[in-house]
Amino acid sequence: MNLAAISHYADQRNCFCLHGGLFRIRIQVAKGDMSEVILHYQDKYIPVDREDTREKVTMKKVSSDLYHDYYEADVTIDMLCLRYFFELNGQDEMRRYYGDYRFFEHAPDNVEAMFDMPQILREEECFNTPQWAVGKTVYQIFPTRFASSKPVDPAVWYKAPIGAFDDLGGDLKGITERLPYLKDLGVDILYLTPIFRSNSSHKYDIIDYYEIDPSLGTADDLHTLIDTAHEMGMYVMLDAVFNHTSPDFFAFRNIKQNGVHSPYINWYYMDEFPIFYGTREKKPNFKSFAYYGGMPKLNMANEKTADYFVQVALHYVREFHIDGWRLDVADEIGHAFWKKLRYCLKAENPNVFIVGENWHYAPDFLTGDEWDSLMNYPFYKALTGLICYNRLSAEGFLAELGFLKGQYQSQVLPLLWNMMDSHDVERFIHTAGHDKQKQKLAAAIMLLFPGIPMIYYGDEVGLEGAFDPDNRRGMLWSKQKADMDMHAWYKSLLALRKRYPALASGECAIAADDTTGLVTIQVDDTTLAVMNVTGEELLWSNLDETREFDKQLLSYRSSRDLLSGREFTGKLSGNEVVVLKHS
Amino acid sequence: MNLAAISHYADQRNCFCLHGGLFRIRIQVAKGDMSEVILHYQDKYIPVDREDTREKVTMKKVSSDLYHDYYEADVTIDMLCLRYFFELNGQDEMRRYYGDYRFFEHAPDNVEAMFDMPQILREEECFNTPQWAVGKTVYQIFPTRFASSKPVDPAVWYKAPIGAFDDLGGDLKGITERLPYLKDLGVDILYLTPIFRSNSSHKYDIIDYYEIDPSLGTADDLHTLIDTAHEMGMYVMLDAVFNHTSPDFFAFRNIKQNGVHSPYINWYYMDEFPIFYGTREKKPNFKSFAYYGGMPKLNMANEKTADYFVQVALHYVREFHIDGWRLDVADEIGHAFWKKLRYCLKAENPNVFIVGENWHYAPDFLTGDEWDSLMNYPFYKALTGLICYNRLSAEGFLAELGFLKGQYQSQVLPLLWNMMDSHDVERFIHTAGHDKQKQKLAAAIMLLFPGIPMIYYGDEVGLEGAFDPDNRRGMLWSKQKADMDMHAWYKSLLALRKRYPALASGECAIAADDTTGLVTIQVDDTTLAVMNVTGEELLWSNLDETREFDKQLLSYRSSRDLLSGREFTGKLSGNEVVVLKHS
Repeated sequence: MNLAAISHYADQRNCFCLHGGLFRIRIQVAKGDMSEVILHYQDKYIPVDREDTREKVTMKKVSSDLYHDYYEADVTIDMLCLRYFFELNGQDEMRRYYGDYRFFEHAPDNVEAMFDMPQILREEECFNTPQWAVGKTVYQIFPTRFASSKPVDPAVWYKAPIGAFDDLGGDLKGITERLPYLKDLGVDILYLTPIFRSNSSHKYDIIDYYEIDPSLGTADDLHTLIDTAHEMGMYVMLDAVFNHTSPDFFAFRNIKQNGVHSPYINWYYMDEFPIFYGTREKKPNFKSFAYYGGMPKLNMANEKTADYFVQVALHYVREFHIDGWRLDVADEIGHAFWKKLRYCLKAENPNVFIVGENWHYAPDFLTGDEWDSLMNYPFYKALTGLICYNRLSAEGFLAELGFLKGQYQSQVLPLLWNMMDSHDVERFIHTAGHDKQKQKLAAAIMLLFPGIPMIYYGDEVGLEGAFDPDNRRGMLWSKQKADMDMHAWYKSLLALRKRYPALASGECAIAADDTTGLVTIQVDDTTLAVMNVTGEELLWSNLDETREFDKQLLSYRSSRDLLSGREFTGKLSGNEVVVLKHS
Repeated sequence: MNLAAISHYADQRNCFCLHGGLFRIRIQVAKGDMSEVILHYQDKYIPVDREDTREKVTMKKVSSDLYHDYYEADVTIDMLCLRYFFELNGQDEMRRYYGDYRFFEHAPDNVEAMFDMPQILREEECFNTPQWAVGKTVYQIFPTRFASSKPVDPAVWYKAPIGAFDDLGGDLKGITERLPYLKDLGVDILYLTPIFRSNSSHKYDIIDYYEIDPSLGTADDLHTLIDTAHEMGMYVMLDAVFNHTSPDFFAFRNIKQNGVHSPYINWYYMDEFPIFYGTREKKPNFKSFAYYGGMPKLNMANEKTADYFVQVALHYVREFHIDGWRLDVADEIGHAFWKKLRYCLKAENPNVFIVGENWHYAPDFLTGDEWDSLMNYPFYKALTGLICYNRLSAEGFLAELGFLKGQYQSQVLPLLWNMMDSHDVERFIHTAGHDKQKQKLAAAIMLLFPGIPMIYYGDEVGLEGAFDPDNRRGMLWSKQKADMDMHAWYKSLLALRKRYPALASGECAIAADDTTGLVTIQVDDTTLAVMNVTGEELLWSNLDETREFDKQLLSYRSSRDLLSGREFTGKLSGNEVVVLKHS
């Protein structure tokens, strides 16, 4: 038994409330190491009406990564405090008991050798996530480049490569006009990158958080966009750029004017005066985003600054009824601010969806009192590692996602924003060497996996683009330019996702197999999604019926592909995806 | 290489600020698995003045538990965000790189394959602990049973076994009168169990938090005690019983009178009316401590309740200048309350020492924004497991403490309240089968180990006692009854501890060896504390000079024992402790 690999923390991390009375307890062990794991539990205190409160339950293996298995048990209790330990039965016939961060050869009867979990406390700290968002899909819009309500010159709109400051004329009205397109595509949540007053086309350097950038429209236009989206059953989320501002933001302007005497001196991290904005050779003399003088970093440890931006966030929830905030550079802002923001936003509207930008597995922001979810860049890294970089096999890919499933609180999983690209990385089709079939494969994985898929505008019509700014080209509205085959592919996958809600919530069994090079999802009892994640053709006639994995595939020999509508031929081309339903 | 055992979290847990610019990064690996671990790091963003910010440093093995080694590196940086990964060189010649929660065969040049740590954020969240407390010793007093300023009948005072409600007449004036005794003993911090108005002798069911219990004295008596202690260079901490109150506390009384219409209805967890206090057969119909109807549990999720008790805590800091609070049943109160309490107390006085009661390793309360320390029951469990229960060997004992050193943020370690008993467990001498030498051994380990030793009143004069209430007998003030040999032992150890501050701070190397059955502490270059943790006699003439461990012992063949003042004889009896200084 690999005792060194065993890990359990009796706090929110591995012992969390799903809802009142129902708790999930999780333990990490070495992969393939255990024949059985049993959770033993009892009341910490002896209730007078029942002397012996001991219970036990066999735990289920729910996830694996490359080196670990994760076992879980759900227990319904009514106790002041849950006391528990694990019985670990190894494949090697060894048995150990694990309680209070110690191993024992015999089951501990000494309560000090167990873990403790106070029920009321943990219930009060239950991670409540916005359930409306489960099963939804995000569509990310870069407003200046998505759609214009005014006539545009196609030579300007479709020019490539695009420059960082090219403003193609996209606006909020343009988005509103395209809502039927988005509804028809099948997406639910529009996430708009910043729309507030700014001199740049990306608007991540904001001058006034209370003013819609004039090039994008007016407050009325935003009202119209949101109200129309809501009427159509769609949701709108905005981008909260609270890590930094433009140097023309009022507080920084005041510092420019008044130096150390400015009442806003503590809103930023000013190192010295006079202010120096940096050159190609020298950093600015104030803290800024990425050492860029055009984006001075806000000091959120200053309460007045924090309060100001909490009010900004509340304003758009109260006055415009937005459905959530995506938090920009959120990993570089402190936990105290996020706790305060969540507390205030959820008090205003518990359904507000709070999604942080963080490029890593980031459990410290996701314990119930900060964000609801994050942009799932680890999904992006796994997907590109599988399809574009040859870093991962089918099993390696699933193992990286298995790490997230085994490590995050379960409530987070259906809400993770799974991505194949964004405005901050190359478009997937570019990374994939312009291989359309690879993009189709990636889209299928993203759209059939648990979580909230995020489609970056244009991907669904084959829009190309290298790194920023090229990944922000004008949306392909021209039927000649748009890849309508790709569009149909996205649309059919989105329809399938809606038809089978278990896909999004994570209830469908997912398997990966390096022998066949497949990833499969058991959509329901008679439906299997099959993704060939290699470039090699796979023939059903070559499958090996003595293998469990192949046997299941063979049972779908006579089936229909729900995506193409055709009878399954028994052949899967490289990177092909089918969703087979028993005939 | 045991990849499954490798663990690093890029948050406060394993990447924390020691003070501005200085960070400690830690990784857990399987025990004995690595030949070298190297930390590679660089700036997340490219500062314009320096293209290549890459650095590397060899990490040090700083701690081990039974199954893991913990490696650390300290880095001084000036970056927006630290980006890093680990190079793991196995004893088996295997090499792996670990970054972004993934393993690589080649050093990642792709920044997405590294861990990120935002410097400003982590500096602002630095765990600032009260440095005055480092090197100090706590003396725990049960006020009704410690000392009386009034004449007492010895037949009453020294009676045993004692009953739960026996009030022997101890009072605050009595404690003040005994301050010279405590000063002479060499302790620094007095921790008093509850002193507020209550009908019980333990006073953990409080009726009025703003009134000193009349049997113990007055507010003036408390002022005098604290002021006198301060004048003598001592500190006073009180017991914060915020999990529950007496049913006679004003808020519960109001509920008794007004039922569901009481304005205080949300101060507790009332299940139904009329109120039922529980019997031997049936639980109370409100939440209470340990299902005991005499201690209704407070609802700290109710903001007014939380605010009330924050004010109580502030009151004694402001008006009485207490030096800290010990928090009763602190593991059963929510994190939000502790965060609020710390925020308010530290704003009033950053030196207030906040110490929670939690019987387990409890990292979720010790990340910098809740408690400063806790009662280190894992130390108690290891110590009794070593000396009383035959559960642990010398090496097993050190491994359990090595777990804490490897897992807690480093700032916590010198502040942990190491205990050999308390008012909530048997006195150590009882658990040790009344073996005086075992108590001397335990006291030596506790008083020479890093952390803050907590002496439970009376242990230093051999006071006996089984479980509560017997562990709360009257203090042995009679010279006939007191074990003055034990007293001298404690006194000499406390003096030694003061003489060598590196003992308390954890800078001294500690070793354990099962072959000889010893635990040793390298006090300084010429001084070695040697603790024989077995019952077997050990002769220096039997040591094996080919063993590194023995070789060091042999170098102390000619030395003097600082505790007894005698020349070392080359013989260590079972459970004997010497502190050898080269002659």
